[in-house]
Amino acid sequence: MEETFVPFRGIKTDLNGRLMCYKQDWTGGFKAGFRILAPTTYIFFASAIPVISFGEQLDRSTDGVLTAVQTLASTALCGIIHSIIGGQPLLILGVAEPTVIMYTFMFKFAKDRPDLGSKLFLAWTGWVCVWTAILLFLLAVLGACSIINRFTRIAGELFGLLIAMLFMQEAIKGLVEEFRIPERENPNSIEFQPSWRFSNGMFALVLSFALLLTALRSRKARSWRYGSGSLRGFIADYGVPLMVVVWTAISYLPAGSVPKGIPRRLFSPNPWSPGAYENWTVIKDMLNVPVLYIIGAFIPATMIAVLYYFDHSVASQLAQQKEFNLRKPPSFHYDLLLLGFMVILCGLIGIPPSNGVIPQSPMHTKSLATLKHQGLKELKDSTIQMASSTGNINAPVDESTFDVEKEIDDLLPVEVKEQRLSNLLQAMMVGGCIAAMPFLKKIPTSVLWGYFAFMAIESLPGNQFWERILLLFTAPSRRYKVLEEYHATFVETVPFKTIAIFTIFQTAYLLVCFGITWVPIAGVLFPLMIMLLVPVRQYILPKFFKAAHLQDLDAAEYEEASALSFNLATDGEMGRTASFADDGEILDGIVTRSRGEIRRMCSLKVTSCTATPSKEFRSLQSPRLSDSVHSPRISELRGEQSPRLGGGGPFSPRTGETRPSNLGKGS
Amino acid sequence: MEETFVPFRGIKTDLNGRLMCYKQDWTGGFKAGFRILAPTTYIFFASAIPVISFGEQLDRSTDGVLTAVQTLASTALCGIIHSIIGGQPLLILGVAEPTVIMYTFMFKFAKDRPDLGSKLFLAWTGWVCVWTAILLFLLAVLGACSIINRFTRIAGELFGLLIAMLFMQEAIKGLVEEFRIPERENPNSIEFQPSWRFSNGMFALVLSFALLLTALRSRKARSWRYGSGSLRGFIADYGVPLMVVVWTAISYLPAGSVPKGIPRRLFSPNPWSPGAYENWTVIKDMLNVPVLYIIGAFIPATMIAVLYYFDHSVASQLAQQKEFNLRKPPSFHYDLLLLGFMVILCGLIGIPPSNGVIPQSPMHTKSLATLKHQGLKELKDSTIQMASSTGNINAPVDESTFDVEKEIDDLLPVEVKEQRLSNLLQAMMVGGCIAAMPFLKKIPTSVLWGYFAFMAIESLPGNQFWERILLLFTAPSRRYKVLEEYHATFVETVPFKTIAIFTIFQTAYLLVCFGITWVPIAGVLFPLMIMLLVPVRQYILPKFFKAAHLQDLDAAEYEEASALSFNLATDGEMGRTASFADDGEILDGIVTRSRGEIRRMCSLKVTSCTATPSKEFRSLQSPRLSDSVHSPRISELRGEQSPRLGGGGPFSPRTGETRPSNLGKGS
Repeated sequence: MEETFVPFRGIKTDLNGRLMCYKQDWTGGFKAGFRILAPTTYIFFASAIPVISFGEQLDRSTDGVLTAVQTLASTALCGIIHSIIGGQPLLILGVAEPTVIMYTFMFKFAKDRPDLGSKLFLAWTGWVCVWTAILLFLLAVLGACSIINRFTRIAGELFGLLIAMLFMQEAIKGLVEEFRIPERENPNSIEFQPSWRFSNGMFALVLSFALLLTALRSRKARSWRYGSGSLRGFIADYGVPLMVVVWTAISYLPAGSVPKGIPRRLFSPNPWSPGAYENWTVIKDMLNVPVLYIIGAFIPATMIAVLYYFDHSVASQLAQQKEFNLRKPPSFHYDLLLLGFMVILCGLIGIPPSNGVIPQSPMHTKSLATLKHQGLKELKDSTIQMASSTGNINAPVDESTFDVEKEIDDLLPVEVKEQRLSNLLQAMMVGGCIAAMPFLKKIPTSVLWGYFAFMAIESLPGNQFWERILLLFTAPSRRYKVLEEYHATFVETVPFKTIAIFTIFQTAYLLVCFGITWVPIAGVLFPLMIMLLVPVRQYILPKFFKAAHLQDLDAAEYEEASALSFNLATDGEMGRTASFADDGEILDGIVTRSRGEIRRMCSLKVTSCTATPSKEFRSLQSPRLSDSVHSPRISELRGEQSPRLGGGGPFSPRTGETRPSNLGKGS
Repeated sequence: MEETFVPFRGIKTDLNGRLMCYKQDWTGGFKAGFRILAPTTYIFFASAIPVISFGEQLDRSTDGVLTAVQTLASTALCGIIHSIIGGQPLLILGVAEPTVIMYTFMFKFAKDRPDLGSKLFLAWTGWVCVWTAILLFLLAVLGACSIINRFTRIAGELFGLLIAMLFMQEAIKGLVEEFRIPERENPNSIEFQPSWRFSNGMFALVLSFALLLTALRSRKARSWRYGSGSLRGFIADYGVPLMVVVWTAISYLPAGSVPKGIPRRLFSPNPWSPGAYENWTVIKDMLNVPVLYIIGAFIPATMIAVLYYFDHSVASQLAQQKEFNLRKPPSFHYDLLLLGFMVILCGLIGIPPSNGVIPQSPMHTKSLATLKHQGLKELKDSTIQMASSTGNINAPVDESTFDVEKEIDDLLPVEVKEQRLSNLLQAMMVGGCIAAMPFLKKIPTSVLWGYFAFMAIESLPGNQFWERILLLFTAPSRRYKVLEEYHATFVETVPFKTIAIFTIFQTAYLLVCFGITWVPIAGVLFPLMIMLLVPVRQYILPKFFKAAHLQDLDAAEYEEASALSFNLATDGEMGRTASFADDGEILDGIVTRSRGEIRRMCSLKVTSCTATPSKEFRSLQSPRLSDSVHSPRISELRGEQSPRLGGGGPFSPRTGETRPSNLGKGS
């Protein structure tokens, strides 16, 4: 994507590109038939559970003005709109944690003003949304999304880790609250006596840790040794919502011997309860907001606009990573414009707006991905056969699981079923949750705190910033173990001391961002701090770090190559041969391990390339690649066809002897 | 050991053998200096914590007649006696779970008899001990220990799994009890109100699971990636007692907001409390026991005698496994005789007797083991160098930890510092625990339930019976993964269907044994059931299974080769060069993985052997080997020196292509 700021040009290009394949977006989805239900259900759970959690969090921090009903309504409404008239249908929308934090800040501010108060809070946020939308329109029209290449790994991963910290903070705060009397409750109730409060707190500890541990374990079900493959696949895909159900059921076990309020459960009112639908008519209060506050609403609006611009674009980028080999064009500018309209709509009906969410958006793409079995399937089989005959397949690897079949699958390009149906259906199912509120209210709040901790921990693997922090704590004598696993380029090419300094700088920056969220009113500024990292990366860091090291530590990996020209015929043909999401185990790794980082592994297609060495290595990975990443062992790649799989020294290409590691040099 | 039943011959041989090295047993220990303290402390914790747990268990099941004071006293007293005048000083004595179960049965029986009651309970057990001792004398004198070769893996492992099940049962029962009002307490106390009882139960769940999970994790500290090697070693060795301290401290955190009895803590009285020392004078009540009960005491005595004969001998065997390369002779007959005397002594002073304990005894030997660094050290270094130069060391193994240094260490023979000092010191420290009772009473009972579960789980790895059960549940498509790890011979040589039938038979037998422990009075018969397995194995199983399969599934691995003639000069020399227990990581595997099973791996010494193929393979492992195990790839061993390390196909020798696996055939 070139950086061009001619007004409307980006939006026009996006619209042209997406309109060309709009019809196929629907026909492709319907052609898939019932198979579309698997990824739909999968992404529905991943989308609904956090939104319910956020609703509960908003409920507590806005004294019940906003509840899970409103967050679910926003997620469903925006999801349906986006799936029908949005640009990139792989993008999943939802009420996100930063939105909740901004609304919490705004509520704290409004509550203490006598001429605003919690009564006019929603009307005031209506104005905030109006201003936010105007800013988003400006950003979209002026082509702000074309600088998205400058959002490098350093900013994206810091944002990811900040979200993880905020999630974990909410989990801990929530658990501590379980030992206390909730503010809005009657402190004389039997369940708030010291003994029952302590019981409730301990019960909450048990339920939240139980959910956390079982959810984490169920995610790894695919590599379990026990049970059939389909059972393991089912548990890996649906284990987390299943565990929410299981622990909710278990929370009823002691019902006979405890008072009704133990353990505490979701507080949200039913959507048909009196007062629960006041928000929908908030538009009539908007003119009652004092003018000063209408103008002042511009300040939080800038923050939210910056936040949404960043969050929406990064979520969209991650859903369109190089590894997915998407064939339809992106739509950053038009999607930002549409987001502006949705923000106004949400503001006027008094619900918090939705935006593109991480990690659900890349999860959505992943669940729609499948391997190109046709053609390459045979190649794979013959390679396995060859490897078997040279005796490498059954050769055991000490205490490990060297899974040749998995390794070969990793090398095959991926194909994604790009369509609108799964997004539409999941949004409608989220909407259905509002009607299912009486059932959702049975979920103990402690289970949700466990889920928050789960989401925080689940988001860490694949984040190179996090992996570098771990590397700092790794004993020098054990650093070699990092080389034995999937690892990023920098581990081999950048001296340890440089890695350490870079990581310590980033950690300090993260802690400042996190600290700002604690400051009572100024906390609203935290999105600015993250945006500030973009110029810091571009102009200041190069003065302290060598260009080659920066390149490896923070490749401009969010660069988006222009898509291949879309070809309806080809797509239709492939659509028939591809099957859905059966290969989740293989695809698991693609998103979590490598977010846009080129894996240090050679491809089967190596001999067919004739470009320059640097281009050669990269063109193997995906037709969409065009950024510039080191390829230190092109010579090896040239030397033989897929040395990894062909026998001989089966394990040499990845960390290799020709390039000694730098690990440990700095210690 | 030949099977000879000439009276006193076994005892005489044992005494002669041990007397020859008695002086060296002490001088060797003192020569080691302060380094002896590391294994001493290690085994003290491993010994004391379970004994305290068993004391608490006895306390509850005997209405406080016996407490942790008595179990600690017995363990200390018998330990001191055995370390000074016992035969095999590697054997650790202690009050064991089966003893607790037998005492529980006997108390239940005595309590309900009006002419016995809990008042004469200890006097009656005095008579039981007298009868038991007489039976043990007979067994020792008549040479019953010489049939120990017939105690094969099937009986030993079934016994191990039964102990694990009983531990786990106690953990679960203990946790359930935390929700109830203890029988002997005043039910009107504030801490037994429903709300506080529920609090206590939930708190207990938190503490016990916290201890279990952190203890299990700390045991694996040596393979952690973070922290220095010495810290990791410290956590692995002392992590479990450390966790007991940590969680006890944490249990005091909510002390301000809960009544005093929450969480419940150890109940045992201080040894100086009135009534706590009544047991010591039980001998004066012994003549008050009705004659009928004195004679009837013979029935439980036979059970206990069988149990001790079996348990003591198996513990001694496991402490003297082939892999340890012990140089001093065993002493089964004499130790059984001495056990008889100690049982009488314990009976007369009203404390439960101690016997040889598993897993502490093999843990003791392991902690005293060190590698023969002299001489072989250089060989190892040169081999690593060679492997490096051929590029195999840095070649990464997919997602695994191929640790060449560790692999080579595994091949080196082990030397054990055989002496009496560590046993004496640990027994004295256990005795010191009685004085430290006021501190021990701070431990919450729930922490002990967690510790019970921990011991049950820790005892499973290395138990082939357990591993076969897991194999039955392994998905057929994943069975190949078993081959990639350390695995027993049978996995490759016995058809899956045969493994399944054998395992199902053994499981059914285990469940019958476990079921019998539940039967109110007949439960006392469970040791007989295990002994019965010896003739079943010898005469009945061969009718249903092929001899070769039985050999692999249940090799007579407890066969004890006659020791090398003891040579004081050599021992002294080696004693000076050896260092203690620094190589715990390496030695960890020896006991847990291979309990007498020959590892499927070739040795560095292969070229120096000239025996017949079958003997050749086995004589590499240890100078003490003399049983008959398959050696399917002698041809490979002959072909090249240490093919595993020398490059080429580095992973081929272990599971190998020459012998296809039978796994999956039966599915």
